[in-house]
Amino acid sequence: MAAIIPSSHKDLFEKKAFAHLACHLSDGSILVNPVWCTLEGDRVVINSVQGRLKDRAMRRDNKVTVCISDPDDPYRYLELRGTVVEITTDGADEAIDRLAKKYMGVDTYPYRKDDQIRVIYRIQPEKAVGFPS
Amino acid sequence: MAAIIPSSHKDLFEKKAFAHLACHLSDGSILVNPVWCTLEGDRVVINSVQGRLKDRAMRRDNKVTVCISDPDDPYRYLELRGTVVEITTDGADEAIDRLAKKYMGVDTYPYRKDDQIRVIYRIQPEKAVGFPS
Repeated sequence: MAAIIPSSHKDLFEKKAFAHLACHLSDGSILVNPVWCTLEGDRVVINSVQGRLKDRAMRRDNKVTVCISDPDDPYRYLELRGTVVEITTDGADEAIDRLAKKYMGVDTYPYRKDDQIRVIYRIQPEKAVGFPS
Repeated sequence: MAAIIPSSHKDLFEKKAFAHLACHLSDGSILVNPVWCTLEGDRVVINSVQGRLKDRAMRRDNKVTVCISDPDDPYRYLELRGTVVEITTDGADEAIDRLAKKYMGVDTYPYRKDDQIRVIYRIQPEKAVGFPS
């Protein structure tokens, strides 16, 4: 059921484009937050902190959606509905540094806190919609 | 249970800021699309076309979330979780013209099609999160 991300929209991952991540909350409502993201093969990878609302939400229900709008053209976007297939702390500190490089141009994520445990979430898209197609 | 939209983030509705609208789909996944929006009192108003996926989704399940990021600062956003409390075609053609004025600077929405029935959705926020707070 893996979806192929359309080649027409893969360039969005080369830009400083935020993903709007949507997760199911326990009360039936939906959490939507802008997050940094990267692409690994056909999986979208995001990073958060253990215990945060989105962390708890994705551990409870792994069905999520990310919508990545082009910062240079808000009418152009890629929507990926999928499943969080891996949640791990392995490599998560290095991964947030790479995201800080992509989005901030710095080598080290500047907001690290000693009491925070960084977490990587790998999302397998099952439905991909690129607009305009 | 109505939530007050924080005054610190109401300016987002004065900008050409898109809302990322998240709706429940029937298969348990989440739809996320960028949409135009306006504020009427404390309600967020969006506009779509009868029969579209988001139209059918909101008629089936009225729990939705909108996340509005600042086009001038992607780290600043307003997330509103709420309920679609009204779905109507009344005034929807005039409303899409007003949205076209806000977002495109034109008096008349240029993509109108004769076979499309425009629809207004009014969303009552129940939880408001402004970041940074």
